[in-house]
Amino acid sequence: MSELPKSVRLTEVGPRDGLQIEARILTVDEKLALIDALAAAGLSEIEVGSFVNPKAVPQMATTGELFRRLVKRPGTSYRGLWLNRRGLEQAIATPQIDLHGKLTITASETFIRRNTNRSIDEAFVEMAAWLPLYREVGVTDCSLGVMTAFGCTFEGDIPAQTSIALIARARDIVADGGVRLTALDLADTTGWGNPLLVQRLVGGIRERWPELAIKLHLHDTRGLGIANAIAGLQMGVAEFDGSIGGLGGCPFAGLRGAAGNVCTEDLAFACEELGIATGIDLNQLCEAARLAQSLVGRELPGKVFRAGHRRANSQ
Amino acid sequence: MSELPKSVRLTEVGPRDGLQIEARILTVDEKLALIDALAAAGLSEIEVGSFVNPKAVPQMATTGELFRRLVKRPGTSYRGLWLNRRGLEQAIATPQIDLHGKLTITASETFIRRNTNRSIDEAFVEMAAWLPLYREVGVTDCSLGVMTAFGCTFEGDIPAQTSIALIARARDIVADGGVRLTALDLADTTGWGNPLLVQRLVGGIRERWPELAIKLHLHDTRGLGIANAIAGLQMGVAEFDGSIGGLGGCPFAGLRGAAGNVCTEDLAFACEELGIATGIDLNQLCEAARLAQSLVGRELPGKVFRAGHRRANSQ
Repeated sequence: MSELPKSVRLTEVGPRDGLQIEARILTVDEKLALIDALAAAGLSEIEVGSFVNPKAVPQMATTGELFRRLVKRPGTSYRGLWLNRRGLEQAIATPQIDLHGKLTITASETFIRRNTNRSIDEAFVEMAAWLPLYREVGVTDCSLGVMTAFGCTFEGDIPAQTSIALIARARDIVADGGVRLTALDLADTTGWGNPLLVQRLVGGIRERWPELAIKLHLHDTRGLGIANAIAGLQMGVAEFDGSIGGLGGCPFAGLRGAAGNVCTEDLAFACEELGIATGIDLNQLCEAARLAQSLVGRELPGKVFRAGHRRANSQ
Repeated sequence: MSELPKSVRLTEVGPRDGLQIEARILTVDEKLALIDALAAAGLSEIEVGSFVNPKAVPQMATTGELFRRLVKRPGTSYRGLWLNRRGLEQAIATPQIDLHGKLTITASETFIRRNTNRSIDEAFVEMAAWLPLYREVGVTDCSLGVMTAFGCTFEGDIPAQTSIALIARARDIVADGGVRLTALDLADTTGWGNPLLVQRLVGGIRERWPELAIKLHLHDTRGLGIANAIAGLQMGVAEFDGSIGGLGGCPFAGLRGAAGNVCTEDLAFACEELGIATGIDLNQLCEAARLAQSLVGRELPGKVFRAGHRRANSQ
């Protein structure tokens, strides 16, 4: 494990990806309390919510209000997510948001049609249309999210070359639009990844574009979340998304009841165990997980917040 | 991941290690149904129960009856566990048991005193006294279980050298007793292990005694169970214990509510994903996990039995 990074940057996506499928709709006050507990624990990046159709995702109806009422802590970026031009326009108009250049594509044609009702080709057209909006507000660097990068519940395996070809296509579009592609966010959207697939895709990208930063967005659908993250760490990946307490689930056909995002505090614990700095106070993060659990009103799958940080009880 | 074994042997310890702390006492019929579902799924070794004081572990009071009433499937070994001479004598007298030579030691002085009310030195004296019993019934090969091999809730880190010194001491005692030590069972009893500790201890043992087979008995106390198993696989370890559905927990001070053994079907899935044969029918194993969940009457932490084997839903 000689290639492990010295430190990692964890992004908390629980308030967005985690909460979006929870049955209980949290109030703005509850969400603000959770977000502040996460920032207080040392998370430097938090996805506050998404700008999507509130009829489709009722939990996200309050994203705008959340941002307006945020009491921001210095050192933490408060991020949002959008999947179409209308969402991006809302984000741009939102006070307090830490706007970043984010583009997304999906490696599975079936998945993108079911999730957003458009084709991969149409998504690339949409992507090009976002770039002038970014330039207008001074965003010059973009990250590209690749959803279903490791495979898809509907299409099965997605070869690394498929994701790599999409990244190449996006790079051209972004360059034509006068913006720089500086980072990738590889999402195991339906929990299809395994350590070998992580090695293969990250390795293939590193070989072709060593200058691109890589973030992994992993789901723990079949119990490989932490193992996949460690495979990423072994490839030098130093950025990960996580969801507090393992909040969330998988809304896709055949997977109801399945686990959601990889658990933030379990991932932070794993990093610390491997000697990798996280900048996080693990005890405070476990407190935030217990808060998340009480807010959603169901037992969350995270392990560390239950067992506590390892330490000798006798001392 | 070039050193991965071609196949692994998984031992199911759910009926013993998993059930022992469950609140609901299963009937003999229920346990027999679970054990048979596990054997039917292809598990070649199952720990049926332990011969311990039923006042201390009420769930194990029926171990003798269980063995008597077993309808054994060919190709499956039905194992028991014992922690003292009285337990071993009971096991020897039990019809249908697939008796194997098993010795145990604990790397933490505090833990062994709390768990068995004796010292490490006393445990070695006990170990020597078991050997004539084994020889009498024709058991010539023994495995040595090392409990708290990676650390302990009470004592904290346990250096690899501590476990290695205990193994050396046990080897001498076993040789003096006319029995061969052929295998080790390294137990992360209180969930203290991490991938680096697994590398270190397994590597240290391999260097000194390359002829000893190594099995890992892992707990998922802090979410590292599967990652620790994969670290073992990467060191060539090809035998693991697992608990169906992730049954069980951790009864030790400060850890109530913590996760139990690494989940058998999640581990089997991880192995298959890495191209390692398990001999297990994963769908049938997931059925067994659902049965275990219904028998204990609480939600089990396993992931794969909930999400199902990965496959394309569209096909």
